[in-house]
Amino acid sequence: MIETKTLTLAEIEDLSLRALMEAGTRVENARPLAKATAATEADGVASHGLAYIPIYCEHVQCGKVDGAAHPVVDQPRPGVVTVDAATGFAHPAIDAGFERLIPLARQQGIAALAIRNSYNCGVLGYHTYRLAQAGLLGIGFTNAPASIAPSGGAKPVVGTNPFSIAAPGADGEPAVLIDQSASTIAKSEVMKHARECRPIPLGWALDADGTPTTDPEIGLKGSMAPSGGYKGVGVALLTEMMAAAMTGATLGLEASPFSGTKGGPPKTGQFFIAIDPGATAGGDFADRIAALAAAIHAQDGAHLPGDGRKAKRQAAARNGVAVNVATLARIEAILG
Amino acid sequence: MIETKTLTLAEIEDLSLRALMEAGTRVENARPLAKATAATEADGVASHGLAYIPIYCEHVQCGKVDGAAHPVVDQPRPGVVTVDAATGFAHPAIDAGFERLIPLARQQGIAALAIRNSYNCGVLGYHTYRLAQAGLLGIGFTNAPASIAPSGGAKPVVGTNPFSIAAPGADGEPAVLIDQSASTIAKSEVMKHARECRPIPLGWALDADGTPTTDPEIGLKGSMAPSGGYKGVGVALLTEMMAAAMTGATLGLEASPFSGTKGGPPKTGQFFIAIDPGATAGGDFADRIAALAAAIHAQDGAHLPGDGRKAKRQAAARNGVAVNVATLARIEAILG
Repeated sequence: MIETKTLTLAEIEDLSLRALMEAGTRVENARPLAKATAATEADGVASHGLAYIPIYCEHVQCGKVDGAAHPVVDQPRPGVVTVDAATGFAHPAIDAGFERLIPLARQQGIAALAIRNSYNCGVLGYHTYRLAQAGLLGIGFTNAPASIAPSGGAKPVVGTNPFSIAAPGADGEPAVLIDQSASTIAKSEVMKHARECRPIPLGWALDADGTPTTDPEIGLKGSMAPSGGYKGVGVALLTEMMAAAMTGATLGLEASPFSGTKGGPPKTGQFFIAIDPGATAGGDFADRIAALAAAIHAQDGAHLPGDGRKAKRQAAARNGVAVNVATLARIEAILG
Repeated sequence: MIETKTLTLAEIEDLSLRALMEAGTRVENARPLAKATAATEADGVASHGLAYIPIYCEHVQCGKVDGAAHPVVDQPRPGVVTVDAATGFAHPAIDAGFERLIPLARQQGIAALAIRNSYNCGVLGYHTYRLAQAGLLGIGFTNAPASIAPSGGAKPVVGTNPFSIAAPGADGEPAVLIDQSASTIAKSEVMKHARECRPIPLGWALDADGTPTTDPEIGLKGSMAPSGGYKGVGVALLTEMMAAAMTGATLGLEASPFSGTKGGPPKTGQFFIAIDPGATAGGDFADRIAALAAAIHAQDGAHLPGDGRKAKRQAAARNGVAVNVATLARIEAILG
């Protein structure tokens, strides 16, 4: 039984903000990350919420991320915004980019945001969610250190690289929010099994020769299994091309790990595309999305991606979130 | 043993053109489809090459596709081109759109093409390939009649909906070309097993209650298994949102079948995004893609998506393509 304490979203944001600033993060950089942390806890994705705050703080202190960075925004073409995150946190770089991307997408019909010299952006769907709230269809890509091998090979070349798409809905909430990685299971789950000395199911990870393994330690030294075999590799490559090659960020092949203090800044990337459905589909978008969602919800037990997070988000706004007391203690220790 | 005859690519194109025109297709509409048919045979995707010509001809004759259609191009925003395919073939509609999309993407950095009232576009990667040949990163989506059920449900709501991405390479050929559907296996494979009265492997299709089946007939009345479970459903939904909701095309839920003569025009859609890597990544794109490809090709037996089709394409340009004689006979019969 894990001991928990219920916090409001404002309390989670405030606690995150203070810890990040105590570690040496400028308030302008800490605020977007603190907001995202509260939203992530609200969505029920505890693995990427407050539990990450001590890691972020450690990374500021060891120089893996520059808490004082100033993201540099540019607009090299009428439809393209670029941000050099300057080895700072991804969140303020994304915020700076979105400020330009959102009005641009409305004006142009479609616009792109390419971010380089960045860092782990947390839950990718948090960012596309905000594009959908602005009435835009948002697509996002973010790359990570290599952990998936190519088809026919055994050495990792691309990360578990998620993509996300959020479609605007009628009520300000996304109608659909997809946020999925290219691997069968999150790498953090394999790491958790390794810490707890528990075997992993066959199909989660492969050894250094590409053979399925139930030993999480061997899996972590080998590679993560791509979801659906070669098609999962395809999704990981799609994301690698968008988030790294198309931004000029560091490939997962050469990126330093997102965990631990070694290797300096990962300098990975994010790529976002924002599209105004009114430009491409006229007035037909809302009807189509509503008909698709209705056909799914009409089936007993069927659900759309994002339904679970949405329900948790609504409950969290009313009731707050039960937070792991051990995590809180680690954050309190940072605050001294 | 299947009896074959070797044809040059020019011969395949000419034969396709004449058959399509004989069935009542305007030359302006038949030419792009004939070119695509030759390219598809060159790529070794025989299932979508000449074998489809008799189906296309039948569909012109029964009114499922309008061989005389005039696609209507519009540019509602600076970065968006739309095409109403007017229930004609997808290929001339895509060509008409690309004519505007390609210069626009270079100028704007990113541009979108949304096509509605369309039809089966054949091999999706053929179209993104041409964007990569123009030096652009091309992303494509096309939807199809519903055959995949949502997570937790058993009734199909989305098609096997492929996506494709093609990255420009140094030699005019794409550096990477991904073209994959959302299902474990192509629906045409299940249909082939049904025709040949052979059982299908578990994991290809599900019965009407969502239980895996080895009976292809039962699978065709049930649903196609999504690749990697719920993540395959996510990819199918991504494509459905782009190709149908974002274009104002018909959802897979309501689309008439791509095979057979019933149901009138499917009116499905295509969505393409073209991005100039020079706009988003400065000069770094080519290096990143080359490093990624090199890391994969350095591993014994490993390959990139698109490698197989590329090798076949190069051989076909030199040696022609061995074509099924029975398919040729069906086409000769159309020519009378």
